[in-house]
Amino acid sequence: MDQPPESTLSQALVLPGFTVRGLTMPELRKDPIVGRWVIIATDRAKRPLMRRKESCVDALPGSLCPFCEGNEDKTPAEILAYRARESQANQRGWRVRVVPNRFPALQVDGHLNKRGDGIYDRMDGIGAHEVIIECPQHKESLTELSEDNLREMIWVYRDRLVDLKKDARLVYGMLFKNVGSQAGASLEHTHSQLIVTPIVPINVQEEMNGSKAFYQYRGRCIYCDIIQQELHAAKRIVLESSHFAAICPFASRFPFETWIIPKQHGSHFENIHKLEVEDLAGVLKTVLCKIETALDRPSYNYIVHTAPFDAQSLPHYHWHIEIIPRLTRIAGFEWGTGFYINPVPPEQAAEYLQETEVRCSS
Amino acid sequence: MDQPPESTLSQALVLPGFTVRGLTMPELRKDPIVGRWVIIATDRAKRPLMRRKESCVDALPGSLCPFCEGNEDKTPAEILAYRARESQANQRGWRVRVVPNRFPALQVDGHLNKRGDGIYDRMDGIGAHEVIIECPQHKESLTELSEDNLREMIWVYRDRLVDLKKDARLVYGMLFKNVGSQAGASLEHTHSQLIVTPIVPINVQEEMNGSKAFYQYRGRCIYCDIIQQELHAAKRIVLESSHFAAICPFASRFPFETWIIPKQHGSHFENIHKLEVEDLAGVLKTVLCKIETALDRPSYNYIVHTAPFDAQSLPHYHWHIEIIPRLTRIAGFEWGTGFYINPVPPEQAAEYLQETEVRCSS
Repeated sequence: MDQPPESTLSQALVLPGFTVRGLTMPELRKDPIVGRWVIIATDRAKRPLMRRKESCVDALPGSLCPFCEGNEDKTPAEILAYRARESQANQRGWRVRVVPNRFPALQVDGHLNKRGDGIYDRMDGIGAHEVIIECPQHKESLTELSEDNLREMIWVYRDRLVDLKKDARLVYGMLFKNVGSQAGASLEHTHSQLIVTPIVPINVQEEMNGSKAFYQYRGRCIYCDIIQQELHAAKRIVLESSHFAAICPFASRFPFETWIIPKQHGSHFENIHKLEVEDLAGVLKTVLCKIETALDRPSYNYIVHTAPFDAQSLPHYHWHIEIIPRLTRIAGFEWGTGFYINPVPPEQAAEYLQETEVRCSS
Repeated sequence: MDQPPESTLSQALVLPGFTVRGLTMPELRKDPIVGRWVIIATDRAKRPLMRRKESCVDALPGSLCPFCEGNEDKTPAEILAYRARESQANQRGWRVRVVPNRFPALQVDGHLNKRGDGIYDRMDGIGAHEVIIECPQHKESLTELSEDNLREMIWVYRDRLVDLKKDARLVYGMLFKNVGSQAGASLEHTHSQLIVTPIVPINVQEEMNGSKAFYQYRGRCIYCDIIQQELHAAKRIVLESSHFAAICPFASRFPFETWIIPKQHGSHFENIHKLEVEDLAGVLKTVLCKIETALDRPSYNYIVHTAPFDAQSLPHYHWHIEIIPRLTRIAGFEWGTGFYINPVPPEQAAEYLQETEVRCSS
């Protein structure tokens, strides 16, 4: 099943005399200095090792890939599927399908069991870790999907968030996609993931704090201001549609980093309007087509940034999607400082992506 | 010369119809939401491309490596060298040597020229980017150096910080080391780097804020508390010497992450005592020997975390060294959340490293 959403163990961890001893439960631990939480999940050390290029196309298409239609028994039982009316759960006939990750970073069952240990804080690793299989055919890129298919994928994203936010133990849902080995993926069949956590992740909290501080000072949403300034300056725009703007952000950390931001204010992705879903399918596909064409099908990640479950509609926060092509490596300086060095000015990246012509079949 | 301290462009960026147009000056830009600064440095796109395994051992040792003794003309002119009394600058006879990075992320000359652009902030990329060549012979690992050599390396670290903090434009000095291609290094000859910036990097600011909040509440340094608790619990200790403790931190982000913390409180690395320098050389060498032995010579980074230049001695901050073996990959979830998933409990990592026997020649 789905191998590594992240932190993939390389072969280096096959060590003589060292085997990870399993914990009964994943554990969440808080760094006492900066407040960053870490998941200690020994189950994930049991995953198969990363292979250089694991392709189920090469190895008997459709017969070995656990995400292909007909192989539903190779995954845990489905949580949700959009499927033909006469079809049965965990059988053929689905269009988009959601299953639990076989090597989950967090477990659904149990209590948080929060506890201290001197100056340290920990709790049990309660949460959800799901895989969204975007189509039944063995396609390697989301850009090969029809726009109808993509709309259903977006509706599945939304339905899973709506469902999981009913669980009072959980406060944040992170939707993301890893494509290519450089981005941490090992299965080619196009899929996304959802990790739902019992605490608000530190990077999200920082976005919330920063945008709230701006709102308290100016009375406006900073993302709305960014869209307005970007559309006016027209220097960092990749494309503009009726409901979205795709831009290379002013302080891009990575070459060709691209954000898709809804023009209308909204803090929670799961409250997306139907017309926005219609539009987003085309925007996402076109932007990814441009990135694939311009950058020669790079590995990339995208992440849906949205407000925590427990917040009401927020005037200061604005959901958006961040796409990060993985063209560069991160080394000591960036780890130490959070200070990124980007050799490509976002104005040049946006111009190049804007001018890249693509023909997306819909 | 030294290629990539970080953000190495991969070959993917050789794109038909796209060439990075150089800026006259690196530029610092601030993310308006979270306050994270980014360096836009087009000069770094001109660097030679990363090769798979660039070895100057294989290719005529000592004749092609710009860091080897005898090749002083292959680097920019030296900034500092500890050398034999009768020897001349930029000639043979040095033991540790500091030169400017040939593809610097920041430039020494000019004014900060801070300016706004609507909601955005930017300034010129003023700063320093230096390479510390740790020994004249072509050695690939710091663990091959004598302890005397390592002590001189540590004194050079300190001397450069003391010198650069005299520049009123600069506020932070980050010393770090990238080893192996996974960690962003491309030259084998053992070396460290120093980047000095005109703003305090966000990760450092977070450590400062977190430790200050703890101090205001408890009246103690949180790092001093951590050392006390760790030495008492004895579950995450890799080694203890007269002046230092090496531990795998409670909330380790990465497998086998190891911190070296001085037992005596001190906020600024450059104020290190002579007896601590003597001791640190052996501790650093032993810890790195253990990591090399236990993990089969992995790529790794280490970073010296220290207080900003403009601060007086701080009761709440405590300098330390963070060592990160690069055994895992970072993907979408971690980028989006700052929430790391680590499959190896630090207790098991520390036990394994503690028990790994090494024989370090001194």
